[in-house]
Amino acid sequence: MATTKRPLLLIAGIGEGLGLKLAHSFAVGGHDVVGLARRSEPPAGVAEAVAASGGHYRHFVADLADPAAVSQVLRPLAPSVDVLVYNAQRLQIATVGEIEPETFEAVWRDGCFGAFLVARALLPVMAARGGGTAIFSGATASRRGGARFSAFASAKFGLRGLVQALAREFGPAGIHVTHVVIDGLIAAPQTERRFGPAEGPRLDPAAVAAAYLALARQPASAWTQELDLRSGSERY
Amino acid sequence: MATTKRPLLLIAGIGEGLGLKLAHSFAVGGHDVVGLARRSEPPAGVAEAVAASGGHYRHFVADLADPAAVSQVLRPLAPSVDVLVYNAQRLQIATVGEIEPETFEAVWRDGCFGAFLVARALLPVMAARGGGTAIFSGATASRRGGARFSAFASAKFGLRGLVQALAREFGPAGIHVTHVVIDGLIAAPQTERRFGPAEGPRLDPAAVAAAYLALARQPASAWTQELDLRSGSERY
Amino acid sequence: MATTKRPLLLIAGIGEGLGLKLAHSFAVGGHDVVGLARRSEPPAGVAEAVAASGGHYRHFVADLADPAAVSQVLRPLAPSVDVLVYNAQRLQIATVGEIEPETFEAVWRDGCFGAFLVARALLPVMAARGGGTAIFSGATASRRGGARFSAFASAKFGLRGLVQALAREFGPAGIHVTHVVIDGLIAAPQTERRFGPAEGPRLDPAAVAAAYLALARQPASAWTQELDLRSGSERY
Amino acid sequence: MATTKRPLLLIAGIGEGLGLKLAHSFAVGGHDVVGLARRSEPPAGVAEAVAASGGHYRHFVADLADPAAVSQVLRPLAPSVDVLVYNAQRLQIATVGEIEPETFEAVWRDGCFGAFLVARALLPVMAARGGGTAIFSGATASRRGGARFSAFASAKFGLRGLVQALAREFGPAGIHVTHVVIDGLIAAPQTERRFGPAEGPRLDPAAVAAAYLALARQPASAWTQELDLRSGSERY
Repeated sequence: MATTKRPLLLIAGIGEGLGLKLAHSFAVGGHDVVGLARRSEPPAGVAEAVAASGGHYRHFVADLADPAAVSQVLRPLAPSVDVLVYNAQRLQIATVGEIEPETFEAVWRDGCFGAFLVARALLPVMAARGGGTAIFSGATASRRGGARFSAFASAKFGLRGLVQALAREFGPAGIHVTHVVIDGLIAAPQTERRFGPAEGPRLDPAAVAAAYLALARQPASAWTQELDLRSGSERY
Repeated sequence: MATTKRPLLLIAGIGEGLGLKLAHSFAVGGHDVVGLARRSEPPAGVAEAVAASGGHYRHFVADLADPAAVSQVLRPLAPSVDVLVYNAQRLQIATVGEIEPETFEAVWRDGCFGAFLVARALLPVMAARGGGTAIFSGATASRRGGARFSAFASAKFGLRGLVQALAREFGPAGIHVTHVVIDGLIAAPQTERRFGPAEGPRLDPAAVAAAYLALARQPASAWTQELDLRSGSERY
Repeated sequence: MATTKRPLLLIAGIGEGLGLKLAHSFAVGGHDVVGLARRSEPPAGVAEAVAASGGHYRHFVADLADPAAVSQVLRPLAPSVDVLVYNAQRLQIATVGEIEPETFEAVWRDGCFGAFLVARALLPVMAARGGGTAIFSGATASRRGGARFSAFASAKFGLRGLVQALAREFGPAGIHVTHVVIDGLIAAPQTERRFGPAEGPRLDPAAVAAAYLALARQPASAWTQELDLRSGSERY
Repeated sequence: MATTKRPLLLIAGIGEGLGLKLAHSFAVGGHDVVGLARRSEPPAGVAEAVAASGGHYRHFVADLADPAAVSQVLRPLAPSVDVLVYNAQRLQIATVGEIEPETFEAVWRDGCFGAFLVARALLPVMAARGGGTAIFSGATASRRGGARFSAFASAKFGLRGLVQALAREFGPAGIHVTHVVIDGLIAAPQTERRFGPAEGPRLDPAAVAAAYLALARQPASAWTQELDLRSGSERY
């Protein structure tokens, strides 16, 4: 019996908010899913959500900011990955005086350096195959450095610069590299734990995931390099 | 016999390139379509393309830069319009010395003033109803003023500023206002007549139209205010 | 007795706030000054302020948005102008529904179209001579379209696009074209009449004028195309 | 004999190009100068250039990307520093596949992390005193990530985000934080060694230094947060 191979989505930095919904949306869209995270447990229900659409979920534990770990886990996967979503970040809101140098560095490692490592492991392989999509999650702080956001904005600006360079470097090889500015907080358990349950508008992670899937489906005759997403009730 | 009313797309500035494909894509997506253009003839085949998906096409002739004409044609339509696409523009590539003041003004009238007139006729009505989408077509020149683009870039920048203001003014009333930066030439008869058949990459108008339809379908929990579209073979 | 000719500054849209201080600062810096304004009276004290530094002030009345008037008044002046400052604008803060089409157009005429007309009259002549400076006054709304700023932001964005094109078109001919984003209100009689005497931070017009003079003095080996100016107590 | 204390400029990352000219310009403008560099030798002639204007030059050797070293060298200096220029960077032009992770990190350490360390050591002390200026050197890659610039653009974007955050965090405390986008190559021995003597336009480092001095002299009633500088013969 012949089976059609499903395309593979790799989510670097999968969590219980957007990551879970990305897995679900892309599975509905026909993908298998691999999740990478620093902690050992996958988000609750992710394997079942992917299986419900006939897909398969695999989970790997790796520190995305560790070159050797990223290389080790991604080398065997790279030839199979069709879509990359880089979704790791460490939000930090504090004054310059409160941010220790090692914290500033850690915010950059998770938010920017890890993206370079993952891109370096996957994009040249995609380019050799002649196709693929790489989507990177930005934030309000990707385009505006606000007070008390020195570490986070620096990392997110750094990611944006990296992604622009990747888009221009790998576009001619058929790789769609795109940056999503998520302008607000996503409704997710970790958001509510940190910011409280009722404070302000929230993006629906399922709607964000749908936008990512739409980006992955854009034909090369009309690629988006950057778009923003925000709740209609967000002031900006 | 009960019939479900189809949502209505209004294309201000319909032509044989993107406009025709927008009509087709939105009709497939369940819409009826109204086209506005300065000339009297609708693009060849547009009514048939819409009808093929069970939709209805109506065509109106109006100078989009004429306040009275816009008001007259849009007043009876406004209560029915669910999606607006403003797609009119007049491309002008010439040195400052070559551009007569009336030409500079005409480029602005078609590319920016008309958008204000149409928005003014439709968006407050949409807001009173509590929903609707307005999509405005930008260009490379919306974000970069190049040599010999003084008139066109000025009009396109002006449109972008207008659209940002509209987004912030009508977003809280439930209207999704969005700006699409079309970064390149769209494959269309008028493009080929002007720039020649083989010069450089082209955006596929059907792919652009699909992106517009996706914007119109975004839920309010994750709206895009601006995205860019370009051919994967475009250098930028 | 030999006299050295003083370079000539032309201020298009001279008022009692920034315009007066520009005249004063450039006169101290060795310039003669010509002022253009729609009303017939020059700002009180401007001729004396220029004369106090050994300069000469001349005043012309013209509608900067009228092609024939601009052409008539600038044709004889153009060969003598070394520095242009375009400072005219019409601030408009109102909802889309409150802005009549003729108001939207008038805001554009003063804020953007007039700049094209003046640039068209002066810059080719400067280019033929091989040197000159053109400074255009932007605003917060040049880079951000806020709610109730549809007309003003559209005009100011349009000006910015125009100025970028002018910079790229005339830079190779030795003309320094630059855009100043004045991010806040300038302390001036008209500001206080409109916004009240004590509401929020104000830019000092003398400090703004000093920044304009510094731009006019930049050597071609390090030209600024755009800078912002705001009060240190402005939140942004 | 009474002597007036001269204000102190600290140049983090002093080299034989811009750094030398900054020392000279600020000395002429009345400053003493401290230079920090990784290598042990100050640029040839810098002490003499500063002394010629009655100033004093001191040189310190420190790795700007080493938190302990920066803290040690800047703690005793911090109370005396009036103006900071952060000018360190490591230019890297290579494809993603050619850039080793440690190189990507090193480019960030010099171009971005060091700026955080120096800012953290100096700006809170300036804020406690109620005044000071901090100028950070950007590049073309601060606003555009080009192919083969993934490391450099990422570091420079990251610096820009950091500086925006610093400006908003320390502005209310009276600190002028500003970012200079140097859009092109500066004429300097190291530039010529790397890119050859005659290839394209060059910014004059003395003119760039003059622009930095003008920024340091801006009154708080009209501060610039960002400006660009490029040669008039640079295409952009």
